[in-house]
Amino acid sequence: MVTGYIGRLLKVDLTRGWIAEEPLNLDYAADFLGGSGFAGRYISDMVTRETDPLGAENPLVFMTGPLTGTNAPCCGRFTICARSPLTGFWGEANSGGIFGPTLKFAGYDGIIITGSSPKPVYLEIAEGKASLKDASHLWGQDCYQVQKTIKDETQTPRSSVACIGVAGEKMSKIAAIINDHGRAAGRTGLGAVMGSKHLKAVTVSGSTRLQTANEDAFHEAAQEGYRLLKNDMTAQMFRLGGTAIYTDIGMMYGDVPVRYYTQGTFDVSNLTGGAMEETILTGQTGCYRCSIACGRKVKLDKYGISEADGPEYETVASLGSMLLIDDLTGIAYVGYLCNRYGLDTISTGATIAFAIYLFEKGVLGLSDTNGIELKWGDIDTVIDLIEKIAQREGFGDILADGSLSLAKRHKAEEFAVHVKGLEVAMHDPRAFAGMAVTYATSPRGGCHLNSDFFFMEMGVEFPELGIVASPREQWQESNKEKAQMAALHQDWRSIYDALVLCKFANLPVFLITRLLNSVTGWQTTPQELLKIGERIFNMKRLLNLKLGLVPQDDTLPSLLLQPLPDGGAADSVPDIDLMIDEYYRFRAWDKLTGKPAKWKLEELGLG
Amino acid sequence: MVTGYIGRLLKVDLTRGWIAEEPLNLDYAADFLGGSGFAGRYISDMVTRETDPLGAENPLVFMTGPLTGTNAPCCGRFTICARSPLTGFWGEANSGGIFGPTLKFAGYDGIIITGSSPKPVYLEIAEGKASLKDASHLWGQDCYQVQKTIKDETQTPRSSVACIGVAGEKMSKIAAIINDHGRAAGRTGLGAVMGSKHLKAVTVSGSTRLQTANEDAFHEAAQEGYRLLKNDMTAQMFRLGGTAIYTDIGMMYGDVPVRYYTQGTFDVSNLTGGAMEETILTGQTGCYRCSIACGRKVKLDKYGISEADGPEYETVASLGSMLLIDDLTGIAYVGYLCNRYGLDTISTGATIAFAIYLFEKGVLGLSDTNGIELKWGDIDTVIDLIEKIAQREGFGDILADGSLSLAKRHKAEEFAVHVKGLEVAMHDPRAFAGMAVTYATSPRGGCHLNSDFFFMEMGVEFPELGIVASPREQWQESNKEKAQMAALHQDWRSIYDALVLCKFANLPVFLITRLLNSVTGWQTTPQELLKIGERIFNMKRLLNLKLGLVPQDDTLPSLLLQPLPDGGAADSVPDIDLMIDEYYRFRAWDKLTGKPAKWKLEELGLG
Repeated sequence: MVTGYIGRLLKVDLTRGWIAEEPLNLDYAADFLGGSGFAGRYISDMVTRETDPLGAENPLVFMTGPLTGTNAPCCGRFTICARSPLTGFWGEANSGGIFGPTLKFAGYDGIIITGSSPKPVYLEIAEGKASLKDASHLWGQDCYQVQKTIKDETQTPRSSVACIGVAGEKMSKIAAIINDHGRAAGRTGLGAVMGSKHLKAVTVSGSTRLQTANEDAFHEAAQEGYRLLKNDMTAQMFRLGGTAIYTDIGMMYGDVPVRYYTQGTFDVSNLTGGAMEETILTGQTGCYRCSIACGRKVKLDKYGISEADGPEYETVASLGSMLLIDDLTGIAYVGYLCNRYGLDTISTGATIAFAIYLFEKGVLGLSDTNGIELKWGDIDTVIDLIEKIAQREGFGDILADGSLSLAKRHKAEEFAVHVKGLEVAMHDPRAFAGMAVTYATSPRGGCHLNSDFFFMEMGVEFPELGIVASPREQWQESNKEKAQMAALHQDWRSIYDALVLCKFANLPVFLITRLLNSVTGWQTTPQELLKIGERIFNMKRLLNLKLGLVPQDDTLPSLLLQPLPDGGAADSVPDIDLMIDEYYRFRAWDKLTGKPAKWKLEELGLG
Repeated sequence: MVTGYIGRLLKVDLTRGWIAEEPLNLDYAADFLGGSGFAGRYISDMVTRETDPLGAENPLVFMTGPLTGTNAPCCGRFTICARSPLTGFWGEANSGGIFGPTLKFAGYDGIIITGSSPKPVYLEIAEGKASLKDASHLWGQDCYQVQKTIKDETQTPRSSVACIGVAGEKMSKIAAIINDHGRAAGRTGLGAVMGSKHLKAVTVSGSTRLQTANEDAFHEAAQEGYRLLKNDMTAQMFRLGGTAIYTDIGMMYGDVPVRYYTQGTFDVSNLTGGAMEETILTGQTGCYRCSIACGRKVKLDKYGISEADGPEYETVASLGSMLLIDDLTGIAYVGYLCNRYGLDTISTGATIAFAIYLFEKGVLGLSDTNGIELKWGDIDTVIDLIEKIAQREGFGDILADGSLSLAKRHKAEEFAVHVKGLEVAMHDPRAFAGMAVTYATSPRGGCHLNSDFFFMEMGVEFPELGIVASPREQWQESNKEKAQMAALHQDWRSIYDALVLCKFANLPVFLITRLLNSVTGWQTTPQELLKIGERIFNMKRLLNLKLGLVPQDDTLPSLLLQPLPDGGAADSVPDIDLMIDEYYRFRAWDKLTGKPAKWKLEELGLG
């Protein structure tokens, strides 16, 4: 076996209640590394255009990577993948905490789950043994409850539980999978896939020790990584103030969406990391072997909650500025409710904002909302809606399927801010033009993580790979370069999602390569890694094409192509057509079919 | 002549009204580069322990460097040096705007001013010609007025004027020299030196074109510099929000002094760059050839002011959090008054905070303050005090000489937060331990710029020179390393002060070397530059020793060695003794005399 990998996958057929193991495909490991690269390769063989995302046949894959669970910094994340019920395309989301490392300690690199159980079950994996347990008594429990109940009844307090709440049970298409208290695999509605399988939770525990090919070299590289992260200004700031430390900085850039992307400024002084520290903060948390620890702990006295996971930047924006709400305690409480019921905060906030926007426009009326008056800045209504979404009650039943579904119902597609059905995240492409092309082309839709190009426009770069920062200020003339850099950055970030490495760990490319080589014994190079990233990205592309994607899906919603009237991004609109043209050319994708050129596929070994 | 330099110094004897020129000493140029390195070398020969800082014999030197006025990024600054009336030791302050470049365009690398005029004069330098003009009618004018009056009467609207206000005229030891609207050479009381000479202003204009040795190489290096700065996250943030963008980040680090350094937290949500943008911001400004443009323009409606230079971070802290004031408009107005009267905002705010601290302690009473009740958070009293300091009226006459003078008067030296008589700047050494040793050893006293080590603890580093970032989190064990790094960083920052290059331009060492070489035709290396920096630093040390400095002056005030009760720096105290020991050892300074070892002086060519 290659060190770094356990070498075993767990396969579960919920329909039949069968559990099996298979050896990890080492060819796949070499070609797709792990994480969502690996999962994508497996899923590619298992789905067709006809696969119902909420049907038994859609595989749900939990996957770790070769660095997961090692002492390398910030490698505590794992990934969950499936065909997305929200978009119909490639679905993936990764999450932190300790679930990923613990899955490896329990003896598996990943889990491939198919079928649908006739009754609610949960999957217990402990020390290399797996079994399905009845979960009838857990059905209906919220995510915090179910984690506690399972730990109690399995008597494994140090286990890690990934689970769904009521939203997932009711197959909300914006449902998340929650693990380790309030960590979320939020995007693309994977909680609904789990719900459709009647799989309430997966719990893992174990003590398998991971091997490395060259322990001394690995230890040295890991220590260097920790040293560099301690000195990395972004990492330090996230450690210091959580990701919400970005809120006011982002607002100055014009990057923080306000009033459903239609307003350029909003007073966020109550919504910053500093404001959180002054008001509700009680502590901070980090994932496995993370020296950043961007997670916050907060108390919400007003709501009788003494400790909750604090909101990160995306939540502060999606449930705050997007809705013109500046009540941090209220936002944190709504974030807490989303974790409790298992909802993606980005899609939830964006869908509610969209509903208010449509209500204000007169597209929605009281008869559509079951008599609920929707207005900006109204935290109490938002709290009420979250409960209704989770329970699919009244108007909440509509919102539970996300923005595009709501738009289609009211023939308002032109106003919905989504890409491929996924609500666009909280970084405005009018502030950082490169985000336009990355939103338009990301395999999972309006995603801010593959790539997080806004960081590149702020100065993060990987010069060893020719991925150089792309200043935000040169508007039109730089759009072409940004398209190229975004493609390269997506490839590099695909490696992060395969290892699985947190994107806040902007370590030098050579160091990441050293970490991987010292763990696996390989002798790969940064350039070879980048090529693997390109392979993974194009593999997901091929899968999306197979699932029905057409080039017209690679676009930006029209609201984001309207200039903002004020703020740091005022009057700036990315040239999306030019960028897409250049992006397709650079990737060797055919403009008419959206398919990678044959020679490119052969070059990447995807022929 | 070496390109980059004009090759001429202007010498002015104000007592006799004589004006002369002399060629630039090229040996000095090679050994001390320019700026405050150059000025220090000249001043070293001109002052003794007996020189009265406010006497005719104290030379006042305006100096540029080899990059000043070129198209290199962020080289718009110039330096002013003299024996400091505030500290009695080495005094220097640099300032931005266009004065430095314009002095070179007017035909001079620098000006050496001695003597004292029998009546108020100003010095006009235009196109290589200099003359003294009567300034009787300008005496008493504020800094904004006098700039306008001189431009009007010399009919050179594009000239640049450096001047003093009433504070300098009255020889306040915390008086600044102000140029280009509200740019300030703030620290060490150089405005008083100008006042003692009855020199109200220096105005410069000219059109000399600067030559470079290798224009193509220079152009390429300069463009690379601009590109890198556009992608530098710190530079971008300062561009975006001004230096006050640091206020809440700094507060989370525990770096922002509160209530005269005795409190660890304060709600600064009204004092951030974002809050400024939301409230009083009208625009931004930059120095000559600066792509950062950290300067802010603000309107202060409440005070009837439609445009003023906005407060930078140091001002927001010294006149805000230090005094428990969170009224940004009020702080900006006080900052404006400081510019108008020509006062250093850091020393002014710190001295007022010290007075309030002593008043609260009962050391000062109403009889000492002329009946003024001093209390925290009282903006109106601060405004009143600024007027009184500028005019040396009542209690203001005492405050006008700074903290140490006030302390001595009331036998309260143990509470004064100063080093060598200079009020410590707005970065708390309990937050960033390396600041302890840099404050203790900086040639001008409690100075945050030589070095700005807090940035190194946030991750800025110059690895090519072995100057690596020093994480703030390892407290005691890292103090020794920090002492070494601080020494190297001071040497490198001495090069910045010689070139003269703004410290927000953290360009790679190789690029700065390329810029210098392509301008001058030299073939210096980064390591040679660092050696020049060490030479400059030790030259200033020798001068300070000659002026009476003893090793006991290399210390930190006791208030900064008390742990803070709360906030980001709670319970952390730098180990100053250990650091000073290591620093002396690393610098080869004698522990008993404070003198550099003979071999070190010979190595540096200072034997």
